[in-house]
Amino acid sequence: MAKLVQCIPNFSEGKDEKVIQGLVDVATSVGGVTLLDHSSDGSHNRSVFTLVGSVDGIKEVAFLLAKKALETIDMRKHKGEHPRMGAMDVCPFVPIKDITMEETIEISKEVASRMHDELGLTVTLYEKAASAPHRTNLAKVRKGQFEGMAEKLQEEQWKPDYGTKLHETFGLVAVGARMPLVAFNVNLSTSDVGIANKIAKIVRGSSGGYRNCKGIGIMIEERNIAQVSMNMVDFEGTPLYRVLETIRFEAKRYGVTVVGTEIIGLTPAKALIDCAEHYLQVEDFDYSKQVLENHLLG
Amino acid sequence: MAKLVQCIPNFSEGKDEKVIQGLVDVATSVGGVTLLDHSSDGSHNRSVFTLVGSVDGIKEVAFLLAKKALETIDMRKHKGEHPRMGAMDVCPFVPIKDITMEETIEISKEVASRMHDELGLTVTLYEKAASAPHRTNLAKVRKGQFEGMAEKLQEEQWKPDYGTKLHETFGLVAVGARMPLVAFNVNLSTSDVGIANKIAKIVRGSSGGYRNCKGIGIMIEERNIAQVSMNMVDFEGTPLYRVLETIRFEAKRYGVTVVGTEIIGLTPAKALIDCAEHYLQVEDFDYSKQVLENHLLG
Repeated sequence: MAKLVQCIPNFSEGKDEKVIQGLVDVATSVGGVTLLDHSSDGSHNRSVFTLVGSVDGIKEVAFLLAKKALETIDMRKHKGEHPRMGAMDVCPFVPIKDITMEETIEISKEVASRMHDELGLTVTLYEKAASAPHRTNLAKVRKGQFEGMAEKLQEEQWKPDYGTKLHETFGLVAVGARMPLVAFNVNLSTSDVGIANKIAKIVRGSSGGYRNCKGIGIMIEERNIAQVSMNMVDFEGTPLYRVLETIRFEAKRYGVTVVGTEIIGLTPAKALIDCAEHYLQVEDFDYSKQVLENHLLG
Repeated sequence: MAKLVQCIPNFSEGKDEKVIQGLVDVATSVGGVTLLDHSSDGSHNRSVFTLVGSVDGIKEVAFLLAKKALETIDMRKHKGEHPRMGAMDVCPFVPIKDITMEETIEISKEVASRMHDELGLTVTLYEKAASAPHRTNLAKVRKGQFEGMAEKLQEEQWKPDYGTKLHETFGLVAVGARMPLVAFNVNLSTSDVGIANKIAKIVRGSSGGYRNCKGIGIMIEERNIAQVSMNMVDFEGTPLYRVLETIRFEAKRYGVTVVGTEIIGLTPAKALIDCAEHYLQVEDFDYSKQVLENHLLG
């Protein structure tokens, strides 16, 4: 079966419709690639594209989008609430079907190399493609933002993987590979956001919880309930049901229950089917062979 | 997006490799159609094919398979353990993607009509395509089998939908439309098959249980445990989790628990994702929009 890769480039332009349309035109111009979604936020002044396609198609479209961003976005003029450092700010590749993480890392490096060789862009590899462990985390790579990046890139530990100094108008782009991300929120039967915060701290990896879970407690004002808002960054390593059941028993401690959950945006079917397998206690289920749709994806 | 239809024709030949290969050749000869699986059983002397494809493709392949069965299988010589009445014994169509049951019924009727008009076959419509309620159930349509069918078809209530009398060598084929079927078994912590039988009786529609559930109790000798063995004939009308949870609480009555479950063969992703949605308590999940793979099926 054909390999499928996802790419979710973020661009530092969320207001100028002409620029955004130019990027959309490029995103829909390559055979074998589908633009699943794109959204722009004015206050963030940022656009997020979600593309999926063949290996060759996704490499080509990512390169062409970087080229278009170089031609139409000038970081010296960019203002927005979201942290950013480049015209194409970040460009992660995600393995979707019949492709390993190793192959996906290779794709990200090929695209990064071509961005540098043919466009003269400055690129830092991040996440699974990072050239050192301290360069894995995007927030750390982006710290200092566009304005502080020229200086930061001169430090030995933040030397770009491709290029030597910050591109004057384009800035820096982080290119990498990661697992699909599932945005998973758990709503609690309490208006005390402190409880949501305590539980978020328990389940998230950074404070001793599940390695592939990031989370914070937030207040859903319109429903007057607290929520544990999470990003599951590797649903195979840390499945959704395990985090939910942990939240359930930790919440009990406060006499609080789970009133509902939310999955935001797109999720791979497997993130949910793994949960069904668990709760239904299915023995020996073979996801790739037994799910009808897996035979239909050409 | 493109409509997708499944077709699962059963043939009354499970031993003669030349005949089976002839059917496989036809099954793989039509553009836009994929042969997902085929299996043959010698003692049943029967073969089951699973095909999926476009509307036009699936109509063409079903017709061509009936033609091939007419040319290569003679029911007057057929012996096997499985009840049967025709060379192509049964030919159900199943809506898979972006297609309604009404459209699928229409497909089954078009194919049935063409089988009669061009091949002179005798056809009875069944399941959702049945021309009367008493003709819905395949077991009732097939009762009397090939040997008794000539006489049965003369009765007013069993008059074929296409043709007037049994085809001499081909027999009768039942063509129809139905929902995807999920084979779902629940293993119990008991070696008392009587308990599995009692529970099967509780959950199956025919004895007062869930309308879209068929089930019997059986013994799994090699594990010395009893099993509720079920066919879920409409997982949207009767979801798997509801039947499982009912089995769980009914089993408690005997101090018995569920030790595991089995899903046999292919299942549509939605049958499992509906269960994940339930157990994870997901609010407002949109299956067609939020599952990544649904955007990839062309």
